[in-house]
Amino acid sequence: MTTDTPGATPRTLCSALPAAEPGSTVRLQGWVHRRRELSAVTFLVLRDRSGLAQVVLPAGSEVPPEETTVEVVGTATANAQAPGGVEVTGPTITLLTEPAATPPVELWRPALTASLPTLLDHAPVTWRHPAQKARWQLAAASLQGFRSTLDGLDFTEIQTPKFVASATESGANVFEVDYFGRPAYLAQSPQFYKQQMVGVFERVYEVGPVFRAEPHDTVRHLAEYVSLDAELGFVRDHRDVLTVLREVLAGMVAAVHERAGEAVALTGADVPVVPEEIPVIHFRDALALVGAPDDEPDLAPEHERALGAWAREEHDSDFVAVEGYPMAKRPFYTHPWSGPADDPARWSNSFDLLFRGLELVTGGQRLHQPSEYDAAIRARGEDPASYASYLQAFEHGMPPHGGFAIGLERWTGRLTGAQNVREVTLFPRDLNRLTP
Amino acid sequence: MTTDTPGATPRTLCSALPAAEPGSTVRLQGWVHRRRELSAVTFLVLRDRSGLAQVVLPAGSEVPPEETTVEVVGTATANAQAPGGVEVTGPTITLLTEPAATPPVELWRPALTASLPTLLDHAPVTWRHPAQKARWQLAAASLQGFRSTLDGLDFTEIQTPKFVASATESGANVFEVDYFGRPAYLAQSPQFYKQQMVGVFERVYEVGPVFRAEPHDTVRHLAEYVSLDAELGFVRDHRDVLTVLREVLAGMVAAVHERAGEAVALTGADVPVVPEEIPVIHFRDALALVGAPDDEPDLAPEHERALGAWAREEHDSDFVAVEGYPMAKRPFYTHPWSGPADDPARWSNSFDLLFRGLELVTGGQRLHQPSEYDAAIRARGEDPASYASYLQAFEHGMPPHGGFAIGLERWTGRLTGAQNVREVTLFPRDLNRLTP
Repeated sequence: MTTDTPGATPRTLCSALPAAEPGSTVRLQGWVHRRRELSAVTFLVLRDRSGLAQVVLPAGSEVPPEETTVEVVGTATANAQAPGGVEVTGPTITLLTEPAATPPVELWRPALTASLPTLLDHAPVTWRHPAQKARWQLAAASLQGFRSTLDGLDFTEIQTPKFVASATESGANVFEVDYFGRPAYLAQSPQFYKQQMVGVFERVYEVGPVFRAEPHDTVRHLAEYVSLDAELGFVRDHRDVLTVLREVLAGMVAAVHERAGEAVALTGADVPVVPEEIPVIHFRDALALVGAPDDEPDLAPEHERALGAWAREEHDSDFVAVEGYPMAKRPFYTHPWSGPADDPARWSNSFDLLFRGLELVTGGQRLHQPSEYDAAIRARGEDPASYASYLQAFEHGMPPHGGFAIGLERWTGRLTGAQNVREVTLFPRDLNRLTP
Repeated sequence: MTTDTPGATPRTLCSALPAAEPGSTVRLQGWVHRRRELSAVTFLVLRDRSGLAQVVLPAGSEVPPEETTVEVVGTATANAQAPGGVEVTGPTITLLTEPAATPPVELWRPALTASLPTLLDHAPVTWRHPAQKARWQLAAASLQGFRSTLDGLDFTEIQTPKFVASATESGANVFEVDYFGRPAYLAQSPQFYKQQMVGVFERVYEVGPVFRAEPHDTVRHLAEYVSLDAELGFVRDHRDVLTVLREVLAGMVAAVHERAGEAVALTGADVPVVPEEIPVIHFRDALALVGAPDDEPDLAPEHERALGAWAREEHDSDFVAVEGYPMAKRPFYTHPWSGPADDPARWSNSFDLLFRGLELVTGGQRLHQPSEYDAAIRARGEDPASYASYLQAFEHGMPPHGGFAIGLERWTGRLTGAQNVREVTLFPRDLNRLTP
């Protein structure tokens, strides 16, 4: 498959220029990344999807402005000083567009030092910076690793609706849509649907957008983010879910190394080693460890950080799972604690996975008996009838099951040491931002 | 990685039972697919994600109702009469849930004959039918083939926002959302974003939901569907886009055969052969061929069917691309016809791909010069300023580019001969349907 004109010199990618035969004619296409006019010579640095290449012109040559797209036909010439040891000499440069306007930031500088609002306002252009682009390449590789690992474990990909009839899972933070004149809502997660599909395929995953009308402007929340969801049947408890999660994280890390090695180098990403067994601590013990009162229902950010430091110190691990989260803080479909405990009704078969002291994944075992759902929904003061379509799956036989959800932006944010998830989101959406 | 209790007999999938050593103890988990009480013996047919297995009990044994989830521990016993030649005898059956309620349709019957509304109303259960489930397996395999083909062609996966600030691409059929007290809209396609990302990665793809407030209740339209989008830079014209599309379709077909061979057999899917070169006909010639007036601006369904029959007859092809669609019927970013023509302003560098006489894909070359966008937007009577964030990409240098979008449900619908796209959608959404 080629997209070259028949008979014309095939296109050479910048990354393939070092392998071109010296003296041969090459044809490159890309963006003018940088112009450098020296007294004796003019350089044009060309950028394409694969990297950069140096093109040499006589001093005083007119070179199109940065970001203009061009075709360069010239001679591949060895030059030990050129990046990769080969440059293009004697070029003919053809503009593929009108000359580009001056970019809002200098994309040819090694580091992108613009402020976050500038980066975000000009996202269509600022993502072109090689170091910025590399951040997304880590995300793309991670998505591939997530899917291929689960494919290998016999999971089936699903695509479930984003329009839902009621804001059932959690009444708060839901977006309302005008759906042909009546209200509908945007799914806050594929939770209900992935559970129902466990009844069909046993093991399912979905990668897609989820919507949260998050009224706070924080560095870790977005109104729309990419959720990597998995759910599986015939588990004993949440520990089986955690075992699959470990495999998935290891697969994502492997994909990042295999498919985005250069992006790791460019971003300086600190890619973790996923331990053979992720350390697990019970919520109650976690509270004691960080010195929090034993009736705290949740972990504060500083508690998460302390647990992250503890996992690093004690287990040489970037990851730690906190299991047994209080039922009071978990959604109604959460399975109660099934291990030994002095207060079994208080704890749950669910966990948060912290990655370097930040919550990255929430997961656990779900209820699977219809009578349990009936009781759990009534306990919230709600009518099971309003959950009728979801409850069908349970009335007609569901296995013990559980699953987890990974937030893509939190993952890549943590990999790259980003201060704000917006830095690793192509076009973030929040309380204040709806463009570009 | 195992999800088995340490020390317990590992789980055997139904599909692996024929390979179990006769006389060995096996442990299976799944759903009671069917009970058959004969005078001399009782059969329990167990279903799991991999298939079915026969379990033999003494006559008169009590067997849990269909769809109850159970664990079966027994002896693998050769029996030439059993499916796969091995059955489970002397079983101990443990219920994993309360006994299941009677399903709304008999899932154990070879064919699912319920009406479409019944199928859809009880989707969490009706998808469990092996033939129904197989339909989605074709979809899942197709998604994998789409992505892996494009990965192999150096495309980068992107995830773009579904919340957009204005209903710019096409004012009609857009859903409005209450976005923190102000209006926002749901993206009808990732078109603008995938183009902007060509400026970054050259070649991008996205699989995700798109939203159309389609006011008509037809067999081929949904309010939400899964769009398989690709876009690539440095093309000569739409023919380069078509070349990539051909590779993608061939990759999807290959993935269906490799990953869902059994599903093909179960659904009786008629999987096409993708020809080395997809026949192409100009819109004007297509009108003449089907006997339509030469000033028709679009193809009616009967014209598409006639073209499908022609492609089959003349080119032995299930696919035909109609290129040169009238500019009047294409969106403003469409590139005009660049080939020889007597009336070049009338035609476009865009195409529809028909699969067995039904539009499956729309694609083509886009404008890439800022001055062209300015003129095209003004020609619609609109102000380019309202497209400011989109137009940034073009002002700062874009290559000639184009792309396409495949509707997942139309693809699998056509593969399986479904009369209605709702038959191949997990949880369809339309004018009337918002549940389950």
